[in-house]
Amino acid sequence: MKKTNTIVLLTDFGKENNFVGVMKGVILGINPCVQMVDLTHGVGAHALEAAAFILWQSFSYFPHQTVFLAVVDPGVGSLRAPLAVQTRHYFFVGPDNGILSMAAQADGIKKIAVLQNGRYFLKHISSTFHGRDIFAPVAAYLSRGVPFSKIGKRVNSIKEIPFPLPVIKEDTLEGSIVYADTFGNLITNIKEDVFKKFLHGRTFVAYLKNKTIKKIYSCYAHAQMREPFFIVGSSLFLEISLKVASAKDYFSLGYIEQQTIIVKSRAA
Amino acid sequence: MKKTNTIVLLTDFGKENNFVGVMKGVILGINPCVQMVDLTHGVGAHALEAAAFILWQSFSYFPHQTVFLAVVDPGVGSLRAPLAVQTRHYFFVGPDNGILSMAAQADGIKKIAVLQNGRYFLKHISSTFHGRDIFAPVAAYLSRGVPFSKIGKRVNSIKEIPFPLPVIKEDTLEGSIVYADTFGNLITNIKEDVFKKFLHGRTFVAYLKNKTIKKIYSCYAHAQMREPFFIVGSSLFLEISLKVASAKDYFSLGYIEQQTIIVKSRAA
Amino acid sequence: MKKTNTIVLLTDFGKENNFVGVMKGVILGINPCVQMVDLTHGVGAHALEAAAFILWQSFSYFPHQTVFLAVVDPGVGSLRAPLAVQTRHYFFVGPDNGILSMAAQADGIKKIAVLQNGRYFLKHISSTFHGRDIFAPVAAYLSRGVPFSKIGKRVNSIKEIPFPLPVIKEDTLEGSIVYADTFGNLITNIKEDVFKKFLHGRTFVAYLKNKTIKKIYSCYAHAQMREPFFIVGSSLFLEISLKVASAKDYFSLGYIEQQTIIVKSRAA
Repeated sequence: MKKTNTIVLLTDFGKENNFVGVMKGVILGINPCVQMVDLTHGVGAHALEAAAFILWQSFSYFPHQTVFLAVVDPGVGSLRAPLAVQTRHYFFVGPDNGILSMAAQADGIKKIAVLQNGRYFLKHISSTFHGRDIFAPVAAYLSRGVPFSKIGKRVNSIKEIPFPLPVIKEDTLEGSIVYADTFGNLITNIKEDVFKKFLHGRTFVAYLKNKTIKKIYSCYAHAQMREPFFIVGSSLFLEISLKVASAKDYFSLGYIEQQTIIVKSRAA
Repeated sequence: MKKTNTIVLLTDFGKENNFVGVMKGVILGINPCVQMVDLTHGVGAHALEAAAFILWQSFSYFPHQTVFLAVVDPGVGSLRAPLAVQTRHYFFVGPDNGILSMAAQADGIKKIAVLQNGRYFLKHISSTFHGRDIFAPVAAYLSRGVPFSKIGKRVNSIKEIPFPLPVIKEDTLEGSIVYADTFGNLITNIKEDVFKKFLHGRTFVAYLKNKTIKKIYSCYAHAQMREPFFIVGSSLFLEISLKVASAKDYFSLGYIEQQTIIVKSRAA
Repeated sequence: MKKTNTIVLLTDFGKENNFVGVMKGVILGINPCVQMVDLTHGVGAHALEAAAFILWQSFSYFPHQTVFLAVVDPGVGSLRAPLAVQTRHYFFVGPDNGILSMAAQADGIKKIAVLQNGRYFLKHISSTFHGRDIFAPVAAYLSRGVPFSKIGKRVNSIKEIPFPLPVIKEDTLEGSIVYADTFGNLITNIKEDVFKKFLHGRTFVAYLKNKTIKKIYSCYAHAQMREPFFIVGSSLFLEISLKVASAKDYFSLGYIEQQTIIVKSRAA
């Protein structure tokens, strides 16, 4: 029986070159019936934290047994190990630099393997493109049903990028902007329930760069034009938005710029 | 029998984030054998008219029974209804804000439904991402063969974006630029047959911003360098082009900028 | 039996419009079970040489019988012929302007045909979009197993874009930059073995614009920050890189800019 498992690709390669296409060619040579989905290839070169966050935010929407092939790899050719991780419902393949940890831990890690069985690699391994030579073929073999135990040597830990939690001290919450989406919405690290607990009925003023945010709305339509506001985003984190306009532009932020946001609560 | 129907995605989400990828994950969880095609995700944020035009211009090139999932949705979370439309040969799914109307009417509307059967949604409905929570799963179920009648409640009308027709008064035709393509060709709303009938044998001068167009050619190769000209585009609308150069740059136009063009006919 | 052959698309159409999506619609109408892969649509408008190089660099990573549909076609509508080429392991479809020659010759040309059997075209042929009207349907029919001999009339030659070889005179090698990838790495036309033979044990200084390159490393991790260096890229050509930074920016180069690089060898 042919397997029609899905491979999801997440890289910082962009789409102006042939990197992603060539990885797909390698995959199709091994599993011609695979479904391939681009999660995104535009996280910004070497933007490990944003990639780890996006992978974590996205994986659970895919069918069980999906293989996630995540290659943001500034250390390619150095000593960071190539990894595969089997979790409760998924497989993750990529470099051991933290990109996999948030998502894999959230689903529940079952087994970790350092990729070292050359039988599942391309024959020639370059020093600059392990995505093509190691990670893509391993992902393809996993999608075809090759047992996880054959892929490499079991190890016990992976490098972690801890999720940056907001810090609460008395009436001040210090959070951060994780990334900006296409519309200029600013995704924060502040979960809705954390925010509600912090406020417990009080109002607030939030400070981002030299501007303030004073409102939270349940949908875009409730806001005024040219007024920044919080809204609970599609992953239950607070996002900073403007109605039919870009909050990123309003606050003069770059595409990925770690930026602190301070929320002060006030008696209502 | 597994259905291999096609779902075509058209959004303003861009590809730098995970929105489109996550919608595809939701779809694959419901119909693992579907073919998915990106029509474009780069129409410009909230560019409803351009999206409606592009959908109308494209739908008939896809196989019958294709499901078009069109999400340009500045009103997400407000009162605009989520819709599905069955036409003579296709299905269209998206918000009731006009994005579907030009294409659906061109193919011939058979049935319209307001999406309200939660069985075909994700369990948790966010207020910011109905593309993932409502539209993608409904499209996936339709592609799998779920009967249209089960999807929602029948209604009789959809919101329309009327196609902007050129206006002819005596020897003057007033048209507009609908959008610019990647090469900088300017697609107008003037159909070839309308233009010919307007001229009936006379010559013309067209005015766009502070420049003029005096030629119409049947192919790019006939033109001189640095000379703007009309050509009948691949959808039978007049386009304004330069030979191996960008008309958008020549006329200093932005990506999507509604711009009036005046054509004056003259005795030949 | 349904064929699940792959069609690989390479164009300069970008992704902000519907061109690529519409070509895929035409393909799916002919072969609903095909696998489609975007090699890239971002080579830059009319960038024939870069497209030919990228096709040549990529084709061998795809499964045998893959159909490559390559449309960078500044001469659309003029007299350049529409072609299909059968090589030892692949099919190539596109205009006869040189885009196919490097890849097809590298794999070994078996047959060349001028496309002229309208049975395998769309019914209406526009003068501006042969990608949709001629090339996409022919590629789809080839992927479905239509015999090559039915597609058109046999001819004996295709237009060639010769690969630009570096020129060596005594202690000087004159090469060029072929293109820059997403990370700003500059891909040269200098193969590793040519470079080694040229040096045979000597050291070197390379000149690019008004800056110099003095090092070659086997992986990125060995380099210092802010130091340009050569590295053997994933296709065995020398690339010019910086560690976690863009060589394109360092040397102030545009996206595709033919640029000469001079290497002087010195006694070690």
